[in-house]
Amino acid sequence: MEFEDYKKIIEKKLNEYIKVDYPQKIYESMRYSVLNGGKRLRPVMLLETLNMISGSYEKGIPASCAIEMLHCQSLIHDDLPCMDNDDYRRGKLTNHKVFGESTAILSGDALLSFAPQIIIKYSDIEESLKVNVLNEFFNAAGVNGIIAGQIMDLDSEGKDISYETLLYIHTKKTSALFECAIRIGAMLANADDSLLIELTKFAQCFGMAFQISDDIIDETKSFEVLGKTPKKDEKSSKATFVKFFGLDESRNKLGYYCQKCCDILESNRFESKIFKELIKNIEMRVD
Amino acid sequence: MEFEDYKKIIEKKLNEYIKVDYPQKIYESMRYSVLNGGKRLRPVMLLETLNMISGSYEKGIPASCAIEMLHCQSLIHDDLPCMDNDDYRRGKLTNHKVFGESTAILSGDALLSFAPQIIIKYSDIEESLKVNVLNEFFNAAGVNGIIAGQIMDLDSEGKDISYETLLYIHTKKTSALFECAIRIGAMLANADDSLLIELTKFAQCFGMAFQISDDIIDETKSFEVLGKTPKKDEKSSKATFVKFFGLDESRNKLGYYCQKCCDILESNRFESKIFKELIKNIEMRVD
Repeated sequence: MEFEDYKKIIEKKLNEYIKVDYPQKIYESMRYSVLNGGKRLRPVMLLETLNMISGSYEKGIPASCAIEMLHCQSLIHDDLPCMDNDDYRRGKLTNHKVFGESTAILSGDALLSFAPQIIIKYSDIEESLKVNVLNEFFNAAGVNGIIAGQIMDLDSEGKDISYETLLYIHTKKTSALFECAIRIGAMLANADDSLLIELTKFAQCFGMAFQISDDIIDETKSFEVLGKTPKKDEKSSKATFVKFFGLDESRNKLGYYCQKCCDILESNRFESKIFKELIKNIEMRVD
Repeated sequence: MEFEDYKKIIEKKLNEYIKVDYPQKIYESMRYSVLNGGKRLRPVMLLETLNMISGSYEKGIPASCAIEMLHCQSLIHDDLPCMDNDDYRRGKLTNHKVFGESTAILSGDALLSFAPQIIIKYSDIEESLKVNVLNEFFNAAGVNGIIAGQIMDLDSEGKDISYETLLYIHTKKTSALFECAIRIGAMLANADDSLLIELTKFAQCFGMAFQISDDIIDETKSFEVLGKTPKKDEKSSKATFVKFFGLDESRNKLGYYCQKCCDILESNRFESKIFKELIKNIEMRVD
């Protein structure tokens, strides 16, 4: 399977799962942000992990779509005026700019219940595994995951923070969802604990590399490339690697995490062309 | 068991479940709105349903607390400036007035993941039942439940709506959570389908009676009694029974739903002093 093959399956399923129903407005708002040309990195990584270990990916489809919905939920709420106040996302107006703030908040809330219901309804797996997958999902979604990252991110604006806090923010805000995707993929493949530990490390390094590259391109790329307002981090005095270390040292750190990802793949003999290409793409993103 | 006995257990458990951790601010914001002197109607009704059918209530404690957290989540988000814009709730400042809008949104989001994790971690029940309970929870929380009610409620402000739409809003916005509480109580008691159908009817009528009484007292009572700004519905041109039928006819409708609740209890020989008292209290609330 190629990245694009997985992506097509995910797009098709997301479109099927979120059918317009009554009240129409909320479904349209959910569809607007979920079917919005995203990269689908996280769901593809879930399916690829599952396929890499077990040789098939099909039973990961509902969970992969659920994780993409969770990702979109976090973006809808993060973009709100009282949060990061972004007018554009992926080159299109943000949800609240199109549907208004109240609908944007409610469609985020709706996705937080809709996503786990997709796992419950459509995952053809044992009930005990379903419960474990849901628990993993909520760990990433909640106060130990992206919420912790976002609240510390907002709280750190304009402040001098420690390197530990910067790592904490990036780990929770970004790595948590990659971890969740890869761990669920591994759990669905009945991976043992040692495998799960290695894959978790991989996800953490991948998330960190991804976030550092995001910090860098926010500083160096145009609206056309980013699909959102550039230099937003600097303007709102966000805690970023670039602010902490400058561009050159951030590029070094990015290289370090990408190398760690490759090392983990190699030492565990994880054979995945897709993961290798993703790591390369992250490094090339900043050129 | 008396109402107050259940309430004490719930208060104690809510306090235990939401321990302050890092990042402190989000936990404090969650605790502020959850440990806030609520009536605890929904969780008590879950435990009472379970006890009424099976003779014990203990295994419903995690789910009852989860439902109360969901209720608080919906209040935090409903009170936001872009929604109902309420400064007071239960006589205290609303969450966003104390912690700011971004934290209020995030603590609502956090509760939406925290609550199901309480069910997953602490419910001592079979995994398949756990999945069914979680599904019931998300049905109430999501686009088929309170979200549908809130979006239609906001959408109907200042408009002439049909009686059907008014019933739809009240059913989704208010009855959905009572339904969820009572149905989960029944499911935990291994109630059969016919019992579940009768209890669902009871919950729907109870929710409707509760909401009509809310509509009435919003119009007739003071800040001291309500704990929030009175005549808020009228000011924001909300769709309410009072607006639709006037005070006298709303009182008649309230009587009708309370009587239906009593009839369902009697015809099914549901013996519950607590349910009978709750119905009486709702009728007396508007005097």
